[in-house]
Amino acid sequence: MASASIARSETGDPLLLTPGPLTTSKSVKEVMVHDWGSRDAAFIAINKAVLEGLPKIIHGEAEFVTVPMQGSGTFAVEAMLTTFVPRSGKVLVLVNGAYGLRAKKILDVAGRANIVHETAEDTPPDLVEIERLLSADPAITHVFAVHCETTSGIRNPVEAVAALTARLGRRLLIDAMSAFGALELDAREVAFDAVAASSNKCIQGVPGLGFVLARKTALAETKGNATTLVLDLHDQHQAISTTGQYRFTPPIHVIVAFHEALKEFWAEGGVAGRGERYADNARILIDGMRALGFETLLPEARQAPIIVTFHMPKDPAFAFQRFYDALKDRGYVIYPGKLTVADSFRIGCIGDLYAKDMKAFVGVVAEVLKDMGVGLKSAA
Amino acid sequence: MASASIARSETGDPLLLTPGPLTTSKSVKEVMVHDWGSRDAAFIAINKAVLEGLPKIIHGEAEFVTVPMQGSGTFAVEAMLTTFVPRSGKVLVLVNGAYGLRAKKILDVAGRANIVHETAEDTPPDLVEIERLLSADPAITHVFAVHCETTSGIRNPVEAVAALTARLGRRLLIDAMSAFGALELDAREVAFDAVAASSNKCIQGVPGLGFVLARKTALAETKGNATTLVLDLHDQHQAISTTGQYRFTPPIHVIVAFHEALKEFWAEGGVAGRGERYADNARILIDGMRALGFETLLPEARQAPIIVTFHMPKDPAFAFQRFYDALKDRGYVIYPGKLTVADSFRIGCIGDLYAKDMKAFVGVVAEVLKDMGVGLKSAA
Repeated sequence: MASASIARSETGDPLLLTPGPLTTSKSVKEVMVHDWGSRDAAFIAINKAVLEGLPKIIHGEAEFVTVPMQGSGTFAVEAMLTTFVPRSGKVLVLVNGAYGLRAKKILDVAGRANIVHETAEDTPPDLVEIERLLSADPAITHVFAVHCETTSGIRNPVEAVAALTARLGRRLLIDAMSAFGALELDAREVAFDAVAASSNKCIQGVPGLGFVLARKTALAETKGNATTLVLDLHDQHQAISTTGQYRFTPPIHVIVAFHEALKEFWAEGGVAGRGERYADNARILIDGMRALGFETLLPEARQAPIIVTFHMPKDPAFAFQRFYDALKDRGYVIYPGKLTVADSFRIGCIGDLYAKDMKAFVGVVAEVLKDMGVGLKSAA
Repeated sequence: MASASIARSETGDPLLLTPGPLTTSKSVKEVMVHDWGSRDAAFIAINKAVLEGLPKIIHGEAEFVTVPMQGSGTFAVEAMLTTFVPRSGKVLVLVNGAYGLRAKKILDVAGRANIVHETAEDTPPDLVEIERLLSADPAITHVFAVHCETTSGIRNPVEAVAALTARLGRRLLIDAMSAFGALELDAREVAFDAVAASSNKCIQGVPGLGFVLARKTALAETKGNATTLVLDLHDQHQAISTTGQYRFTPPIHVIVAFHEALKEFWAEGGVAGRGERYADNARILIDGMRALGFETLLPEARQAPIIVTFHMPKDPAFAFQRFYDALKDRGYVIYPGKLTVADSFRIGCIGDLYAKDMKAFVGVVAEVLKDMGVGLKSAA
């Protein structure tokens, strides 16, 4: 091993260059070393601060409420779809990766009618085609879009989709999971009924809680829509807004960590500050990897600063598992590819990672390539 | 305040005399101060150890597998009911408290036919009536029973219910939530298809994970039954048993804490050791409270050593909120009542609590009563 040092986080862990769960600050994790009663005032106050603070991230304090959902981001997405889409509803699902497909699967299993507009994983949805589909089928009540599709790292044009959806009199539901808190989503300008995200992405908490920011007027219309008890956002909101308490045991430690993570998020300047750091991380990563000969899947204009997909090098000396393991040995955990269109791997830019970490990472990639005998730069 | 000292756990927190979330050991919480990648080998190995270890608690290593469910215990119960009961199935739900009623609600929302056998909250189900109901209605495919109904603290006769259910050719599903790990449930002798529990009860982990121990042969028959994606135990099991990974982000820190909690559970002697400590806790609590003039809801024979329901004293000087707050000020969090049959409150005996804690608690109750001017003992 050429490098003498192994990268470690503040708590001695490998750095997670993954799209979440991700590296969190030591302070976020340390607040979990306590116990709270789920129905006692101390926890209720912490939870209230979390729920009341989240709509500010989308400038939606007046119009939106937070409905938390135990589990993970996908639990929140399923809760959003099955609460907001009535049994008589129909959804146009915009698909350009695994998370759009997952939404379709949720709708199929839950017995909600849907059609799909699918584009390639490196291609945003076609607004002309969306308009044609919505105009042709008056039964469609909702459109579902993914803000940053983690499959590729593509930034989808939710603003334009929202404007079109509103113009044609339909409702928009957004899966903002890996984008929430890093890419601007301004509810004063973008029309949507609900957006789902989770504790363990750009707010930099630990995993275990999803949430949906729901337009109050739209949520009020959803009573009786849900086809499950635990995922019923209307019922969940009724209980919490009335009693301050969850219907079913909340992941207390995860919520307390999320509370701390939100404090750190605002201290960094909210979406602007965090988004800027991630953009810097992505810039250093992309420039550095390109200088080594790697190629990104996406052109600049479509790349969100969340996770970057790189084509697998064609050099036969490059073996992904060896590359992954060598990086892990040096303290960096990267992410396998999920694309169907191309052999690839992914590197995340989010979490408690800074310019120095990304620079050091690129340096380590260069070392690993050298150790493997891969000569990308000359080949590129 | 008469007492100079305020009770505190190892981490400086009030002691939770609640039915879970509960007081956990410092070591269980401290393992959470790290980050792991959800798809990396280190976490996968920890999760595997957790899942493989749980069936030993019911002596079901050969016949049962663990299917974890993100969320909470109720998420696991809904997953169990909607995965094991097909759309054409019908459930006899045994109700003597809020958790039996919750199962009925889950079945109603999910569109699964059901009938209820309800007894008073202090009364176990009537085996003669169960036999009559099952014999009269061949459409009933499953029976649902709660092991310890936390509403009252009653120990339900799951062994007898299981024998009857099996004799009449039906399948049993058990909600063992607050009993699991403290009350013996031996799968070699008790016939059931699945039992649901959670991380934050008698195993003494933190909240955020439910799980179902499922009989392999029964789980294999459930493909396509589920009416949600996230709560589909068959699909969840397929993914984890094939790849070692969760379909959707797991609550990593909760699982790592649960892993530590399981180590401590076995170190204490498993169900026998833990159950004995809780039985001691319950004995000290009940004897001490009775000596002060309090009356328990349940007779000895029906009382599980998990949580004890006390009748609210009739002395007009007794005000529950003042009692609760005064105990909280002295470092003890107790639990409000949930009964419909009687005005009551509850005190838990589970968690990282020992004989000395229960003795000290009873002493503090005596002080608080004196401060409030309540003379229960003479009144009793």
